[in-house]
Amino acid sequence: MSDLPKRVSIDEEGPREGFQSEKKAIPVADKVRLIEALADTGLERIACVSYVNPKRVPTMADAEEVAARIRRKPGIQYSALWLNQQGLERALRGPLDVYGGVRITASDTFSRKNVGKSVQDALVEQRMSLRTFKDRGMPVEWGIVLGAFGCNFEGEISTDLILARVQSVLDEAELAGFELKGIKLTDAMGWATPRSVERLIGAIRDRWPELEIALHLHDTRGTGMASAYAGLRLGVTKFDASIAGLGGCPFAATDGAAGNICTEDFAFLCEEMGVETGLDLDHLIEVARLAEDVVGRPLPGHVMRGGTLKAARQRAAA
Amino acid sequence: MSDLPKRVSIDEEGPREGFQSEKKAIPVADKVRLIEALADTGLERIACVSYVNPKRVPTMADAEEVAARIRRKPGIQYSALWLNQQGLERALRGPLDVYGGVRITASDTFSRKNVGKSVQDALVEQRMSLRTFKDRGMPVEWGIVLGAFGCNFEGEISTDLILARVQSVLDEAELAGFELKGIKLTDAMGWATPRSVERLIGAIRDRWPELEIALHLHDTRGTGMASAYAGLRLGVTKFDASIAGLGGCPFAATDGAAGNICTEDFAFLCEEMGVETGLDLDHLIEVARLAEDVVGRPLPGHVMRGGTLKAARQRAAA
Repeated sequence: MSDLPKRVSIDEEGPREGFQSEKKAIPVADKVRLIEALADTGLERIACVSYVNPKRVPTMADAEEVAARIRRKPGIQYSALWLNQQGLERALRGPLDVYGGVRITASDTFSRKNVGKSVQDALVEQRMSLRTFKDRGMPVEWGIVLGAFGCNFEGEISTDLILARVQSVLDEAELAGFELKGIKLTDAMGWATPRSVERLIGAIRDRWPELEIALHLHDTRGTGMASAYAGLRLGVTKFDASIAGLGGCPFAATDGAAGNICTEDFAFLCEEMGVETGLDLDHLIEVARLAEDVVGRPLPGHVMRGGTLKAARQRAAA
Repeated sequence: MSDLPKRVSIDEEGPREGFQSEKKAIPVADKVRLIEALADTGLERIACVSYVNPKRVPTMADAEEVAARIRRKPGIQYSALWLNQQGLERALRGPLDVYGGVRITASDTFSRKNVGKSVQDALVEQRMSLRTFKDRGMPVEWGIVLGAFGCNFEGEISTDLILARVQSVLDEAELAGFELKGIKLTDAMGWATPRSVERLIGAIRDRWPELEIALHLHDTRGTGMASAYAGLRLGVTKFDASIAGLGGCPFAATDGAAGNICTEDFAFLCEEMGVETGLDLDHLIEVARLAEDVVGRPLPGHVMRGGTLKAARQRAAA
């Protein structure tokens, strides 16, 4: 087991992923309450809102208000998502932390559904954003490949296509004067399995051994934790996850399916295998329960119901 | 990935695990309907009922009636659970398939809670059952170690203790004139992680290289599928699972937690990684939905909500 990393970082996606997926409106105060509670669990980066078209994602119409009302704790990164230059400009006007990046989608159909543009048009559109990052002296360190493991609309995505997509984001970054340090592979449509995680990471490392890999896995079909474990085995140290398993992707055509892998379940898995997360599991579980209160329905998280093994060990020792 | 097995067998635990865990009474006709539906999915072995004390498990008071009413399909094994000689005799009087075996629990406290006897008393009590198997010419091929990965009551369970437990069941079997071909490791309390699966299977194989290993994993804390994948990597070919994730353990002190790993999610994981299961995934998903109807609540299964990738590939190709 010596090939597991000593420590991983888990970026929290619950507020952004979760609030955009819920059907009912969630009051701003509740969104803020959840974000502030997450900031007390040891998480270092919390995705809070999406600056997206409120006609397409009505539950994010309050993004500015949510962002403004968060009492931010020093040392924590409160991030946001945007999909185009207009969204980036909203993000830059707001109080949250804005991180440069360059994004590409594997399949054209998912690109059109998710960001409203073809793969190439979306990439070209980001040239303006990259210029903005450069002008403001903001670093651009990560490229993101969306839908990297398969597509609900186009089906199987070949490894060669993903390699070409990685090359494209590296090229775009370079063109703008940036050298990327890593690539995040995302799977909002829930196609990843341990096998495809191993295959794709292996292929990327063969070609770009110096690139770090991050994983954003969804548990749409129940394979999220096994795929995350496959990533751990390969030494991946950067994962996205979602408190209580909040979320889903509104444009993945898998309505009602589970979202991101669950933050506290994944943190539990890591800690039990000797991989540090820096997170306070008991506290995360409290916040997972708060997340259920906020959305008003049971969420998929397991350890909040099963209890931690630390607690079981303490009861046994008492 | 060549170390994954070519094919695994998945034994269905849903009816037995599920019906004993549900709070509300489920009509006999519904239980029978679910069992008969499962028999059309390619599953070769279905655990139907527990012949246990109806005072302790009221939802199994109808075990005889359920067993009698199942229209059995040829070639399918309809199994039952019992915990003592009295239960075995009920099983032998009934129409279901009875398989010899010898069972031991890792921790004394869980043994008392689950089977109502200390580890040693429970083992001695099985001598009578072993004699019954011998007298009737029934094979005894598998030993079972319950709570093999940890105990909600006693905490950590050492590898050495499990090795001693395996030795005890091998000895009891031998004493009765049987040679075991394998050991099933069960985890109704949900302690297993990929690390502990690897450690324990490694230790057993070191000592008894010829023994087959089977895994009965619960998803109490969200690690079930990752642990099952760890088992697959080690070449384990025999798993228990539960349709839609039905179930839980009534004596594990984890009320409300998830039960066995989910049959159709695990079958999906296997098939997507090139490991044959012999199961019809679409059909399993239909039956998972039936299971939700029967118990009247949403169950934890994922792929029944996310949809299969086969369907997604077909839609994409159309």
